[in-house]
Amino acid sequence: MTDSGNSPPSDPFDALIRELRAFAAEREWAKFHDPKNLSMAVASEAGELVAILRWIRNEEADAFARDPENHARLKAEIADVAISLLLLCDRTSIDLRQAILDKLEVNRRNYPVESSRGRSDRPGRSRS
Amino acid sequence: MTDSGNSPPSDPFDALIRELRAFAAEREWAKFHDPKNLSMAVASEAGELVAILRWIRNEEADAFARDPENHARLKAEIADVAISLLLLCDRTSIDLRQAILDKLEVNRRNYPVESSRGRSDRPGRSRS
Amino acid sequence: MTDSGNSPPSDPFDALIRELRAFAAEREWAKFHDPKNLSMAVASEAGELVAILRWIRNEEADAFARDPENHARLKAEIADVAISLLLLCDRTSIDLRQAILDKLEVNRRNYPVESSRGRSDRPGRSRS
Amino acid sequence: MTDSGNSPPSDPFDALIRELRAFAAEREWAKFHDPKNLSMAVASEAGELVAILRWIRNEEADAFARDPENHARLKAEIADVAISLLLLCDRTSIDLRQAILDKLEVNRRNYPVESSRGRSDRPGRSRS
Repeated sequence: MTDSGNSPPSDPFDALIRELRAFAAEREWAKFHDPKNLSMAVASEAGELVAILRWIRNEEADAFARDPENHARLKAEIADVAISLLLLCDRTSIDLRQAILDKLEVNRRNYPVESSRGRSDRPGRSRS
Repeated sequence: MTDSGNSPPSDPFDALIRELRAFAAEREWAKFHDPKNLSMAVASEAGELVAILRWIRNEEADAFARDPENHARLKAEIADVAISLLLLCDRTSIDLRQAILDKLEVNRRNYPVESSRGRSDRPGRSRS
Repeated sequence: MTDSGNSPPSDPFDALIRELRAFAAEREWAKFHDPKNLSMAVASEAGELVAILRWIRNEEADAFARDPENHARLKAEIADVAISLLLLCDRTSIDLRQAILDKLEVNRRNYPVESSRGRSDRPGRSRS
Repeated sequence: MTDSGNSPPSDPFDALIRELRAFAAEREWAKFHDPKNLSMAVASEAGELVAILRWIRNEEADAFARDPENHARLKAEIADVAISLLLLCDRTSIDLRQAILDKLEVNRRNYPVESSRGRSDRPGRSRS
């Protein structure tokens, strides 16, 4: 239903993961890249992302992100989170594209359009 | 529906972002999805990822991640981080694939193969 | 049992919070310090803490933390997390000491000594 | 200098740490509580704190935090962050009160009143 057999012959994430894997292999970093350490890398990079926006008010956040210097910082931190996440997928044999599609299916069930419209999560109920 | 065969030449993240955007639009969630809030979503999901592995020792982490139940939990949390990150890329017009490739270039300069081999980051120097 | 009436006449956290409040007030930072922004500050500082230890293996972590340079870095990042957390407590009128004692009571019920001995959390069950 | 002899008779964190230590010892959890794992616990609890406020706008955050149900959730998550942080201090022999006072001294130098007034951090410069 989510991925009805028409996936591309080679997964488009594969090329990125191959580059990241080669980068780490050249530096002999695989020994650092177990799932535990990579989860910490994801959290640490997510912390840097949040640091950029912590003092910016919601109503200013879009304009802030359009400013070229801020945009470059956000882009670099987003890339760091993604790199750590892709290395973790590679290490744990998780197909990120399929993981996202599967989670969307779960979210479709948990957040029916009618009852979820315009509402963020409520106490005791996690939205994602 | 998800990935209509026109892969690598087109961006691997595009089809996913279109699905996520539609999912959020149907629920009128765009108003929650400014860059500040989405950065918090990334950090919150990264925290859930780290929670899974916090009491697992490094030497057990790979085996832990192969266990089917743990694998499913990791896959779901990784997907949550990625979904928040892709929504943030969409909101800020950041091309995630290009962001990753650009960051890899920076990392190639900052971590020359010879001097980085087998070494994790040192005090005062962030590795990513 | 936990809070048997022998609390000090003035809460010992008060002096710290008064210093932090004065520091922020002098700089007119209260406008940045709403609960949302301070929660982001906590997450961002927690990310920096995790960054220090992400590539260190469990069996090396205690020795790593004893090294004077690492100890100083850990101390500074732990302080940053605590400062953000105390500012958040001040802003939201949360008594941190009482919050900790109350949570310990909850944890005593949720983690009975006999069934919790030597076990970390299991899938579907958060330990703290 | 900051703490010129008028310190409270007993360190405010000492009694709490003794309780936390006893709680962990009874359950034989010390083996899980190395500095690496505890830093992950801090990050994971910080993620839960941020999750509560991620969809709340800045201008609503104070009122949100006063609502009794939200207040209780915030109090519990703040306690979880603090508990992990105090266990980490205990494990690494870090005096949290002194760490906070020392960091305040650093911050006083880095953020002079005149030039910092009313300004949050700027690109390339971390505020804490």
